[in-house]
Amino acid sequence: MADEKKLTGRDEDYSAWYNEVVLRGELADYSPVRGCMVIRPYGYRLWELMRDQLDRRFRETGHQNAYFPLFIPQSFLSREAEHVEGFAKEMAIVTHTRLKAGPDGGLVPDPESRLEEPLVVRPTSETIIYEMFAKWVQSYRDLPLLINQWANVVRWEMRTRLFLRTTEFLWQEGHTAHATHQEAEEESRRMLGVYREFMEEWMGMPVVTGRKSPSETFPGADHTYACEAMMQDNRALQAGTSHHLGQNFSRQFNLKFATESGAEEYAYNTSWGTSTRMVGGLVMTHSDDAGLVIPPRLAPIQVVIVPIARKDDEWQTVLEKALSVAAALPGVRTHVDDRRNLTPGAKFYEWEIRGVPFRIEVGPKDIEKQQLVLARRVVADGEARKEFLPEAEVLNSLPARLEDFQEWLLMRARERRESNSYRGVTSYDEFRQIIEGPGGFVYTGWCGGSSCEERVKEETRATIRVIPDEEFRSVETPKGCVVCGQPATAEVVWARSY
Amino acid sequence: MADEKKLTGRDEDYSAWYNEVVLRGELADYSPVRGCMVIRPYGYRLWELMRDQLDRRFRETGHQNAYFPLFIPQSFLSREAEHVEGFAKEMAIVTHTRLKAGPDGGLVPDPESRLEEPLVVRPTSETIIYEMFAKWVQSYRDLPLLINQWANVVRWEMRTRLFLRTTEFLWQEGHTAHATHQEAEEESRRMLGVYREFMEEWMGMPVVTGRKSPSETFPGADHTYACEAMMQDNRALQAGTSHHLGQNFSRQFNLKFATESGAEEYAYNTSWGTSTRMVGGLVMTHSDDAGLVIPPRLAPIQVVIVPIARKDDEWQTVLEKALSVAAALPGVRTHVDDRRNLTPGAKFYEWEIRGVPFRIEVGPKDIEKQQLVLARRVVADGEARKEFLPEAEVLNSLPARLEDFQEWLLMRARERRESNSYRGVTSYDEFRQIIEGPGGFVYTGWCGGSSCEERVKEETRATIRVIPDEEFRSVETPKGCVVCGQPATAEVVWARSY
Repeated sequence: MADEKKLTGRDEDYSAWYNEVVLRGELADYSPVRGCMVIRPYGYRLWELMRDQLDRRFRETGHQNAYFPLFIPQSFLSREAEHVEGFAKEMAIVTHTRLKAGPDGGLVPDPESRLEEPLVVRPTSETIIYEMFAKWVQSYRDLPLLINQWANVVRWEMRTRLFLRTTEFLWQEGHTAHATHQEAEEESRRMLGVYREFMEEWMGMPVVTGRKSPSETFPGADHTYACEAMMQDNRALQAGTSHHLGQNFSRQFNLKFATESGAEEYAYNTSWGTSTRMVGGLVMTHSDDAGLVIPPRLAPIQVVIVPIARKDDEWQTVLEKALSVAAALPGVRTHVDDRRNLTPGAKFYEWEIRGVPFRIEVGPKDIEKQQLVLARRVVADGEARKEFLPEAEVLNSLPARLEDFQEWLLMRARERRESNSYRGVTSYDEFRQIIEGPGGFVYTGWCGGSSCEERVKEETRATIRVIPDEEFRSVETPKGCVVCGQPATAEVVWARSY
Repeated sequence: MADEKKLTGRDEDYSAWYNEVVLRGELADYSPVRGCMVIRPYGYRLWELMRDQLDRRFRETGHQNAYFPLFIPQSFLSREAEHVEGFAKEMAIVTHTRLKAGPDGGLVPDPESRLEEPLVVRPTSETIIYEMFAKWVQSYRDLPLLINQWANVVRWEMRTRLFLRTTEFLWQEGHTAHATHQEAEEESRRMLGVYREFMEEWMGMPVVTGRKSPSETFPGADHTYACEAMMQDNRALQAGTSHHLGQNFSRQFNLKFATESGAEEYAYNTSWGTSTRMVGGLVMTHSDDAGLVIPPRLAPIQVVIVPIARKDDEWQTVLEKALSVAAALPGVRTHVDDRRNLTPGAKFYEWEIRGVPFRIEVGPKDIEKQQLVLARRVVADGEARKEFLPEAEVLNSLPARLEDFQEWLLMRARERRESNSYRGVTSYDEFRQIIEGPGGFVYTGWCGGSSCEERVKEETRATIRVIPDEEFRSVETPKGCVVCGQPATAEVVWARSY
């Protein structure tokens, strides 16, 4: 049933707006388990459409799916020193394996079922996967080994946000083993490219790609690449990462192979991941004060068809017309809203909140005139929301209109990002004014020192999002560090982030 | 690399045979976590093909996928009294949420992170799902609510077997809410039918369907329906269950709805599930002493093409031919085995272990004669394993041959089951001789008393698998209970089971 209470506006309270859009768009709901959410059918279908696309790309690049245990022995996490430093803190720890009746009639963990070595619910699977790789890889002929896993992972987060940061989340983690450093490097770059292409072409979410600074690198990785998107509050969202792990894990898990000449070498690993967090990024890239806006390629419903009858005896006619319109759009994900207990206005309102790209209205007058009313979820300033068009034209042009809308959303997001990106900033004062004022992506020189990075973080809560890839760099390479003024070793992108 | 050690035979040691077939067929591997397995890419692909088929059927019958938390508050499990009795015993219990450095340098659960209320890793999700349903359902207009979840679940099993019984396993669990008892009953029967159709038409695994006796009913259900398949050691495997939960859970979780007349009523629920256990059933239905046999519709590779060259200068020609044969079979899942470091014999052996339905060999002589060598993984007694056929005939007939093989496997499995099923058994001595001898499905009368059921279980380890649906019942309804001789209230199927 539509709840016609207006959503909080983005300008009013951005964070409240986001939660309302997710909840009232029926993407997700809070659960009785702290920090865990329920992904509702509409949100899960969106995730499935995203997953299927990524999965297709993983296969096309030679990867195979597999499944590894949910639990990791506690001792595994201690093996890779940096890894444990980064991850060993907040996790779900299984210590018992049986409940029994307690003194007050309730249930308690049975002390006799206490595990000798506790198990950790995987926060990520590097350790257990490379342990298995070591068993499967003998010679260079077994390489490269290209595996992906779709799974749930758990990180005991203190502050959670629907999709953006939840204790349990769904993700994919790619894990590969290669004979040479160069092959692993190519792989980590290739998968970053797969992510970028998916995010831009399917999510309509433009990203800046590049390398993380050492302090933001994945624990246990030689270096980390990332896709950074800009949300509508001008904060950055890290939407996907790809790590070159070097030989760090292969040494700890004894992942060796016989080379063609018979020598023994440690393999080179990569890992890369994206998660349900992307759904939050999608929401915050396109949605507006009327609710969700979902790009057509990922929309569970691309076109909703609403039959409109003033009188009861018109209902059957308009409903049949609505069904025949849906049937005439075989490649399009349509939905006919045949509920009789809601007004057309309430339906329009509901489908706008749910971000359906196009709405078709059909009433008795439209049938008479052989026309349909077509409304796009968002249009450019000055364009009409509603068009009255000949039926044939709507049917013929809808696939192209869906593609046009898809492209327009990407373009709009890119323009918004660029108009909130700042280049050529050399003064630290100016830098702070931007970060602490409107926010956005600030491109500056950086000396490479962690103390400058630390100072910025403490004073402004901004971090280096990436050392951007070549195509994102400024035409004029910055000469000095924006913080200390010493010679810059790289241009970097700063922003506050999720 | 092919390991040419012969498999243990089924007659020699059935259990060892099964493990070897799974491991050497590369479906799964043991993991370092007790009771948990790794599903390898070949096994996971098989599972994906199964999942996609079931998922399609769930959608066609109006269900939507969603995702609920991995963790369940311990108190939830105490609410439904029978449910907790059946499930509260062996589960993974999360008690802490942080690791810290211990006295000996390793990691220990941080006592300060102890949870006030422990969380249980879901053994099944009725409790948390019906808690959410109660939030979403207000009126009869919100019903039926038809949800499915694909997820991992954990039951702390003492004795585990690859796929058949593992601590963690993958499954789907359907959960629905209905306005009337009759609708829920129809739903639970409908989904049993979906399972049966999938198992027979896709897995080639015939099943006997029916209702469970009270002692074998799901904890918290009014009654349970099941699909029971016969394995090659004549034991039964329960491959899918569908439960009518009545109002048991809706009362505990306050899942009420306003009826059309404005009254308040508790909803009726069903739940139904199948799991990776089906993979074990598939293996034990069709495989033989040479390894896996996978029915074509679910085979990750349906046809393997092996180019054969005696001399190095022939290699390019036969390889190109193999690739062109693969390209000429666009609707078929083919694989060209282009490894140069293995003999054709070693390749044949390996693909037989992995259960690929058809093998095509192509050598220089075959190219000359415009023929191909076609070998089917299993043939009927007296039929030739290998055929030398004109290339065009192979290409044209392969899709039909795959379907024929699919049907033949089902027919063979059905014949095997029927020749190991016994009807008209009225003497308890004879009954024991069958169960304790060859084993199989024994159809007898039963008085309906749990003491007779208990006695059989204690004395023979057999249980009532189902009170069979009408089409499976004997022509002559048994008159007396096979145990006590009292009048029979139903015909039942007994067997030892997995």
